[in-house]
Formats: sequence, structure tokens, C-alpha cells
Amino acid sequence: MLTAGGCPKNMLSIKDALEALEGKWKLLILFSLSTGPRRFKQISKEVSGISDKTLSKELKSLEGNQLIKRDVQDSFPPTVNYSITEHGRSLEKVMEELHYWGLAHRRQIIGK
Amino acid sequence: MLTAGGCPKNMLSIKDALEALEGKWKLLILFSLSTGPRRFKQISKEVSGISDKTLSKELKSLEGNQLIKRDVQDSFPPTVNYSITEHGRSLEKVMEELHYWGLAHRRQIIGK
Repeated sequence: MLTAGGCPKNMLSIKDALEALEGKWKLLILFSLSTGPRRFKQISKEVSGISDKTLSKELKSLEGNQLIKRDVQDSFPPTVNYSITEHGRSLEKVMEELHYWGLAHRRQIIGK
Repeated sequence: MLTAGGCPKNMLSIKDALEALEGKWKLLILFSLSTGPRRFKQISKEVSGISDKTLSKELKSLEGNQLIKRDVQDSFPPTVNYSITEHGRSLEKVMEELHYWGLAHRRQIIGK
């Protein structure tokens, strides 16, 4: 079990992960992109509650961490698509566990 | 697979989870408490980089979400211990997946 030893090295890797995923938006953006590439406005609509300014900042941070890719298409007018990378997809299990835990948390706290 | 359907309900539960765990400190505090109860100063030392003000705020939020318990012991002077609850322990799998992903992320981004 991960926590049985309380190893500081485990804490370091969790810290790395939390810094790359900081805030409540990044995983939701990745979740939105997990079913296919999207344009800015589509992501903004799917991730309800996010402002354009925040979304723009979060997309840059995700790109910097190689979790998403930004493609400019040479059309008239040019269009920009965002897609999830292989490295972004590797967060699937984290998202899955968060999903299950979120359900349990709602039962425990919100839904009672 | 969780993301195959892109179900908005999954996004809602992930959002619930991210709101309860918001920021980069809460999971690290829980990780520190996972091996046993701690006093404020012990947590502050283990979770390196956190200020006393932030730790105090995060402990209150974790208590409000029933993830930790605060016990005042009737000693001279009184001492306060923080411990993880059953509900807090249910984040074990989330922490495990974040740990593995953090390792992979370090290889991908930081360690190359």
C-alpha cells in the first residue's frame, strides 16, 4: 500500500502531479478533450463555469506540460484545435479514481 | 473506460472531487496524516513549503469535508491532534494513481 511506509519520495511525486494539475479546471479540460479535439469555444461550453481568461491560461499551462497540443489549421479564417496528447491520456486512471471518489464524496457530504 | 462516453455526469463527479481537494496542499496533508495522527507543527514540517496560515485554512476545509478529525486532548497545556477519517482514507487510490502519474510526469517533463 502506498501510504504504509509514508515514504517522503511518494510525497514528492504526488507534489509533482498536483503542481502540474493545480486548480480545479485542468482535469476537467482534459476530460472534455478525452473524446476528441475541440475548439476554444467548445471547451468553454463543456467546462461550465470557466471564464475565457482562465481557460486561455489553463490551455497554455497544459500545453507547457505536454498534456495537450494546439494545432492551427490553414483555413479561411484559420482555426485552432486543441487535442489531448499521449501523456495527457495517461491521466485516465487518475480521472477514473477521482470520478469514483467524487461519487462517494457526494453521497457522504452533499447528498445526505 | 470512463472517458469513452464523455458523459457529463462523470464530469460532475470529477468536479465534486476537485472542489473538495482544490489546491496543491490538501492531498499532501492527508498523505502526511495517512501514517498516523499528527500535531500542527509536525504536519507543517512534513508538508514542506506550506505556510502556517495556509495550513490552518486547509485543515479547516478538510475538517469541513469530513476528511480529517481534530481532537483536543485535556492535558497541560491542552494539545491538538489531527487524524485522517475513514472518508479521508478512501482517497488512497486517488493518491496512489497521482503518485504513479507524478513519477511518469517527472520522467516526461522534468527528468529528460
